[in-house]
Amino acid sequence: MIRIGLLGCGRIGQVHARTIKGLESAHVVAVADAMPEAALSLANQIGAEVRDTDAILSGSDIDAVVIGTPTNTHFEQIHAATEASKAIFCEKPVDMSVENIRKLMEGVRRANVPFFTAFNRRFDPNFADLQAQIQAGTIGAVELVQITSRDPSPPPIGYIKSSGGLFRDMMIHDFDMARFLVGEEFVRLSAVGSCLVDPDIGAAGDIDTASVTLTTAAGKICTITNSRRAAYGYDQRIEVHGADGMLRAENILETSVERATAQGFQKAPTMHFFLERYEAAYRAEMVAFIDALQNKGRISPDIEDGLRAQMLADAAAHSLETGRAVEIAP
Amino acid sequence: MIRIGLLGCGRIGQVHARTIKGLESAHVVAVADAMPEAALSLANQIGAEVRDTDAILSGSDIDAVVIGTPTNTHFEQIHAATEASKAIFCEKPVDMSVENIRKLMEGVRRANVPFFTAFNRRFDPNFADLQAQIQAGTIGAVELVQITSRDPSPPPIGYIKSSGGLFRDMMIHDFDMARFLVGEEFVRLSAVGSCLVDPDIGAAGDIDTASVTLTTAAGKICTITNSRRAAYGYDQRIEVHGADGMLRAENILETSVERATAQGFQKAPTMHFFLERYEAAYRAEMVAFIDALQNKGRISPDIEDGLRAQMLADAAAHSLETGRAVEIAP
Amino acid sequence: MIRIGLLGCGRIGQVHARTIKGLESAHVVAVADAMPEAALSLANQIGAEVRDTDAILSGSDIDAVVIGTPTNTHFEQIHAATEASKAIFCEKPVDMSVENIRKLMEGVRRANVPFFTAFNRRFDPNFADLQAQIQAGTIGAVELVQITSRDPSPPPIGYIKSSGGLFRDMMIHDFDMARFLVGEEFVRLSAVGSCLVDPDIGAAGDIDTASVTLTTAAGKICTITNSRRAAYGYDQRIEVHGADGMLRAENILETSVERATAQGFQKAPTMHFFLERYEAAYRAEMVAFIDALQNKGRISPDIEDGLRAQMLADAAAHSLETGRAVEIAP
Amino acid sequence: MIRIGLLGCGRIGQVHARTIKGLESAHVVAVADAMPEAALSLANQIGAEVRDTDAILSGSDIDAVVIGTPTNTHFEQIHAATEASKAIFCEKPVDMSVENIRKLMEGVRRANVPFFTAFNRRFDPNFADLQAQIQAGTIGAVELVQITSRDPSPPPIGYIKSSGGLFRDMMIHDFDMARFLVGEEFVRLSAVGSCLVDPDIGAAGDIDTASVTLTTAAGKICTITNSRRAAYGYDQRIEVHGADGMLRAENILETSVERATAQGFQKAPTMHFFLERYEAAYRAEMVAFIDALQNKGRISPDIEDGLRAQMLADAAAHSLETGRAVEIAP
Repeated sequence: MIRIGLLGCGRIGQVHARTIKGLESAHVVAVADAMPEAALSLANQIGAEVRDTDAILSGSDIDAVVIGTPTNTHFEQIHAATEASKAIFCEKPVDMSVENIRKLMEGVRRANVPFFTAFNRRFDPNFADLQAQIQAGTIGAVELVQITSRDPSPPPIGYIKSSGGLFRDMMIHDFDMARFLVGEEFVRLSAVGSCLVDPDIGAAGDIDTASVTLTTAAGKICTITNSRRAAYGYDQRIEVHGADGMLRAENILETSVERATAQGFQKAPTMHFFLERYEAAYRAEMVAFIDALQNKGRISPDIEDGLRAQMLADAAAHSLETGRAVEIAP
Repeated sequence: MIRIGLLGCGRIGQVHARTIKGLESAHVVAVADAMPEAALSLANQIGAEVRDTDAILSGSDIDAVVIGTPTNTHFEQIHAATEASKAIFCEKPVDMSVENIRKLMEGVRRANVPFFTAFNRRFDPNFADLQAQIQAGTIGAVELVQITSRDPSPPPIGYIKSSGGLFRDMMIHDFDMARFLVGEEFVRLSAVGSCLVDPDIGAAGDIDTASVTLTTAAGKICTITNSRRAAYGYDQRIEVHGADGMLRAENILETSVERATAQGFQKAPTMHFFLERYEAAYRAEMVAFIDALQNKGRISPDIEDGLRAQMLADAAAHSLETGRAVEIAP
Repeated sequence: MIRIGLLGCGRIGQVHARTIKGLESAHVVAVADAMPEAALSLANQIGAEVRDTDAILSGSDIDAVVIGTPTNTHFEQIHAATEASKAIFCEKPVDMSVENIRKLMEGVRRANVPFFTAFNRRFDPNFADLQAQIQAGTIGAVELVQITSRDPSPPPIGYIKSSGGLFRDMMIHDFDMARFLVGEEFVRLSAVGSCLVDPDIGAAGDIDTASVTLTTAAGKICTITNSRRAAYGYDQRIEVHGADGMLRAENILETSVERATAQGFQKAPTMHFFLERYEAAYRAEMVAFIDALQNKGRISPDIEDGLRAQMLADAAAHSLETGRAVEIAP
Repeated sequence: MIRIGLLGCGRIGQVHARTIKGLESAHVVAVADAMPEAALSLANQIGAEVRDTDAILSGSDIDAVVIGTPTNTHFEQIHAATEASKAIFCEKPVDMSVENIRKLMEGVRRANVPFFTAFNRRFDPNFADLQAQIQAGTIGAVELVQITSRDPSPPPIGYIKSSGGLFRDMMIHDFDMARFLVGEEFVRLSAVGSCLVDPDIGAAGDIDTASVTLTTAAGKICTITNSRRAAYGYDQRIEVHGADGMLRAENILETSVERATAQGFQKAPTMHFFLERYEAAYRAEMVAFIDALQNKGRISPDIEDGLRAQMLADAAAHSLETGRAVEIAP
């Protein structure tokens, strides 16, 4: 039975808490949150204690910590958890600074603690199946990957300002997905970006529409497009072209009902809310983490995956600024 | 070079004339129509003579006649063509009376003239492929067939009155398709029908909405549904369920464009006009007829197919009248 | 807080127990099962007591009973629950005998106890949306309904023998769906059926492939087809044709991944297992039941819905036997 | 009646000749080809004369020339046709050299002769509908365009060597489509390309897999991906994302038949051959050209469109060589 301490009782912390509650092999011992009522409310729901963060990080009855706190607190929490030899499940991004992630990675490796970077989309049943089919060779060698990721509408401008920018906040998921699918590191990247959705986003120094093209040493190509707006819902699609065929994962619609009228054939919009769209993925990633702990299996995605995605996001930001293609450090 | 006489220069006659004009192995020598201007206009377009019907039926320079005249003239024309040993291509229905068709069939067999009943839908590339896949065993033994056939809107009430009723005018295509797909004769049939679209149709003694269920001696089941109205266009679908799977042919939409908005994902209506929807089928059936004549191949569908479909239409009408299942004569 | 006693701790009982555990407005006080270990195991999982059936039916701390026991025990349990003024949630079929259901209905009405017949498919989000769209008038007046329902593979022959036959065991869901969608009672029905899947089913006196056509007094038509086998998974589709258009609910596939190769474009099979396919429906029906109890809302589907579906199943069996159309008693 | 001289009797010349034969408002007076038998054969088929190229270009009975000869002969033919004041329909590319096209454009403008650059895909009914929907504002302002264009298999290596390279031979269609859809000029472009399909293509100095990203002054983004190989057929798709929604045109499959088996749901490959896939487009572009001549309407796409596409192809080649983004001259 894995004993878990949960840091951060917000939306995503609650999702993880509910998943763990349904598992036989783990339970949440204690929760912490900067807002005491949030911690208390979640603790009551799942039958856990409220403790402060430090008490959880050092608790002798805690095997693993799940970190769902704001990004700027990750560094210290991961550092402390590493020192205390806890297994770590950390929401993305691990940290806004590649330098910091490198430091944490050294510590994690030295202490040999299991570290899971929560790139949940790898665990979406559809994307996971797509990747498994690539691995199984159903379309031969991968040649071209196209990832489309569009939010239904932009987040509040306050969120944008502290987000690290579209590449680090939103496209980072797609950078990880690209690495996951291609199975090789990218060596070069070129980014373009515009502010087309909301001028306030531009005024805040960010973009809301972007396209990034990445290449591997072997010449495999990946294009990612992002938009902060999609009238028809949350648009999450992947297409992979290989020597022997193509795989694509389409959007998930709200219902399977189609209506045919004089205007034509109409289906429902896509699922709108990311927690609903990726509900199965959030569950599956936690199950995978607990399972790896129990069976001493390989943890994946790990902290290096977190680092690599952040490096690509940094490179994209740099490419956008300079208007030039950027080489990725190996 | 097959020399053809064309009887009837209306919409469907023109379609056949244009097809033949594009073929290297046949040409239209002469055309006839009750309306002289119609005959003259088509003759000019395709470089043919205008003759009267009898002259065509007895012409020594005519190898085959294509009959696209009103149904009530078919009997005499087929009779004369048979006597003159012409090959015959006849639009459905061969005749409204099963008795008459039997008589014609005897003549055709005695004279050994090639006779093609123009059930064009067998030659639609999609339905033809579906049937070929059944034959190839891709879904194992056929168990259940569902045929959906709906017109965009009802024909003029005048047409309805002389049409022989929905079963003989509209569902006859589906009866032939059912036989074509199942490859066994049906032994029993049960029909229901309603007037839901237009009360004038009911007043004219006909129905506009119907469902017929047929069974073979081996217990294979086919359901056909018809409606004289479909807001979204011409609805023509087939689904066949077999021991190892299912085949279905979907509608053909006007374009491949999909629009996604806050209301969802919208595609175009189906192709609306039967001559456009079945354009490839009309061409292919004529090519098949000419080809069979040239190569002395088997003519299919033949006059017996025309007879069988008419028998099923009669049985459906009888079942609707009596409210009882009807056995089909072997 | 609604206090619930659960009768039957099998597969479906467990599903309901887990749903109730997740609700704030209800909890399972006690469970019973003919197999003590089954009861004990479920009781432990959800924190309930084990009692015997009678104790639950008469328990003063029980507001409602959920009946998931074998059909042949329903009559006595419903009778006892009615006498004890418990609200009742009963799996379909209520009873194999229409006569018995009528008796139970009289008791339920006299005692004025809430009675929910668990036709879960009404609560499938897709079918519920389809029905809501009909109600909202998006396709005008309903004219033709086509319900397709095919199991992945036949149940064990032992199950078949005690099932009451395909119409009462399998198509009963579709009879209820037809009533739900059309919103009018059917007055006439005609059935055909064959044994094409497994000769043992025929030897047991049952069929495995069937088609039933129903009509309302207003002439609306519904066709239902069933098969005990579908190579591609659990096939559950509905199509409704109305004056102004068509609604259809397609199958739910295992994943959204499509693979394109030289053979074409391939998608996953349909979800295979009914508990998984209708997971959301099982949850939603229980939520609706509890909600109606709490808010003294209308219970639907109720015991009369259970009766009506059973009457249609009986009529279909009678039609199949006699080879004739059957009038449905009002 | 527009009198046409046809230069080049190869595959595409034959397509245009057949289209014109079917029109009432134009006819082919004479044809020319470097191979006399090719010219003779086509002339016989359509009832035209064989002449030599110069005789056609200067013929007083010729109103318009259709140029379907090898690209390296275009310059002189266009020059001569311009001098002789003939209307010109020219296959893409107008010329391999932007400088040459500029010279021709000056001549064409000075002489005021109608000049049609045959970017046939603008006339595909699906793409034309998509563009018309953009124009009609159905998805608001365009933000992101994704064009996917993949050939079933690479052309012979001899063709590759004289093709001008993937950008000028294959992606030039997509560059024109991008301009057509976005309705603004692109100001900046960045290209990547690899040789993944056939090493011989790389040895010939070309690439077979590529991605190009273009941006307009307003920040609109277009990504184009090309591959010389697609196992599943000729892959031709467009997706346009706008402020209020998305439009996409999907591939055209060989049939509408879907087969469901234990492996899932399988549809046919895409149409494989470009002349078949774009049959309607080839016809429609010629109709548009003739129509514009007859009605003195605007010719579109014109020679400047040919120039612009070539400039983008050159820029892409330059970007690939230098590994840098390239500004497009206004």
